[in-house]
Amino acid sequence: MDFDRFKITGDKKVSLKDYPTDYDGGLSEDDLKEAVKGVSKDIVELQEKLFAEKQQSLLIVLQAMDAAGKDSTIEKLTYSMNAQGCNVHSFKKPCKTELAHDFLWRIHAAAPAKGEINIFNRSHYEDVLIVKAHGWASDKTIEKRYQHINNFEELLSDSGTRVVKFMLNISPDYQLERFKRRLRRPEKHWKFNPADIEERKLWPQYMSAFEQVFEHCSSNAAPWYIVPAENRRFRDYMMASVVKAHLNDLSPKYPKPNFDADRYTADSLE
Amino acid sequence: MDFDRFKITGDKKVSLKDYPTDYDGGLSEDDLKEAVKGVSKDIVELQEKLFAEKQQSLLIVLQAMDAAGKDSTIEKLTYSMNAQGCNVHSFKKPCKTELAHDFLWRIHAAAPAKGEINIFNRSHYEDVLIVKAHGWASDKTIEKRYQHINNFEELLSDSGTRVVKFMLNISPDYQLERFKRRLRRPEKHWKFNPADIEERKLWPQYMSAFEQVFEHCSSNAAPWYIVPAENRRFRDYMMASVVKAHLNDLSPKYPKPNFDADRYTADSLE
Repeated sequence: MDFDRFKITGDKKVSLKDYPTDYDGGLSEDDLKEAVKGVSKDIVELQEKLFAEKQQSLLIVLQAMDAAGKDSTIEKLTYSMNAQGCNVHSFKKPCKTELAHDFLWRIHAAAPAKGEINIFNRSHYEDVLIVKAHGWASDKTIEKRYQHINNFEELLSDSGTRVVKFMLNISPDYQLERFKRRLRRPEKHWKFNPADIEERKLWPQYMSAFEQVFEHCSSNAAPWYIVPAENRRFRDYMMASVVKAHLNDLSPKYPKPNFDADRYTADSLE
Repeated sequence: MDFDRFKITGDKKVSLKDYPTDYDGGLSEDDLKEAVKGVSKDIVELQEKLFAEKQQSLLIVLQAMDAAGKDSTIEKLTYSMNAQGCNVHSFKKPCKTELAHDFLWRIHAAAPAKGEINIFNRSHYEDVLIVKAHGWASDKTIEKRYQHINNFEELLSDSGTRVVKFMLNISPDYQLERFKRRLRRPEKHWKFNPADIEERKLWPQYMSAFEQVFEHCSSNAAPWYIVPAENRRFRDYMMASVVKAHLNDLSPKYPKPNFDADRYTADSLE
């Protein structure tokens, strides 16, 4: 399947209402479940080569409204990955030490090393999303931040890190259903925060902030994907497929042995 | 199954020759494969509670001779874990910056946060294993290090981190077979290092260094387990079972909601 219709490379204005939140790609639940298995197997192999090669890395950025399914997306995406070589960083409200530095300081520290796949659950984009939605910074500051973000991602990209960014796209109605679901299940209460109900009121401001991000912080080297996230099977299939495509494009290879393969053979060890 | 016969709590001298390297616990391959599935499911649930509770953490330390299977042990153990909340740290030969600090500096920085499970692929124990086997430090320095290690692990333990240490136990013959296997398979050449052949010659010194570690750096709060690692299915079953037992013992619980559950209900959101 071609996911280019969900890909943003910065060449045009984006209106989120043109993007579906619930989509199955014409595939049944069972088709999607099977398809993701095949893709996952390919990812396992590509990850091992990336890890062995130790020349390139992959940074996956995940942004979404509350309850859009970030945690379960990460769980499904990493299910078949080797934990050694894959790190997940969750960025919460910055602490005092973090606030005493520029907004990219804590982000840079969590960038993947060569050979690694890192996943950001929220990211530097919070500083141009929640901050913009609430009006906590001036337009001028936000515009400067777009530029800092682009420069930072270009630095990563020039250093062998592929940056791939995903927005899990849901409707306000879907979010409300998820909140209700959390309240109905006591073992999910720990995920519910009454403040999220207040935050919902800023939905239009958030969507507008996302659209600005797509317009200002997308490129071929660091694209955004707007993932229809209400159908979780399609979401998982799309996430895995796009990640696989980018790993494929990096084309990692097992490194040449750093020893004389004629001298060291299985027989030579007898 | 009871794994206490493989557990070291520091109350006695340990001779590695009393511990099997190849062991199936009287179970068939298929039995072991099925058993590990059941244990993994329990770990998934326990990990979610640990993550939600955010009061305690688990540190898994893995040490072994080359080619004992550390990487594949980690792969199997983490297969069912959620990557969010599980970090693997591999400690290589220390770099200049690391050497400019005490030997526990880089280790402490990688300790798990509350709610997390961290796995160390090699660890602070290298500083009393490889260093001792090669005679790179005096006996007095090594003995001081045992004490520093115990104090450090006590600090972690007092702060809510359960420390569980595993030595993957193999024979020199098994190691040789694994080296040969790597040389026979071009896609495994990147894992072969001719220096490992030299290192083999110090096998008795390494075994003695391990025995000293077991004697000096084991306790009920931070036990060692000597894992028979040649039968990989038994190894995986034992690793998962011991990890599950310790998680069970921590008994993590979903936290109480930090909101008024009478006020916020699914109906209240209508």
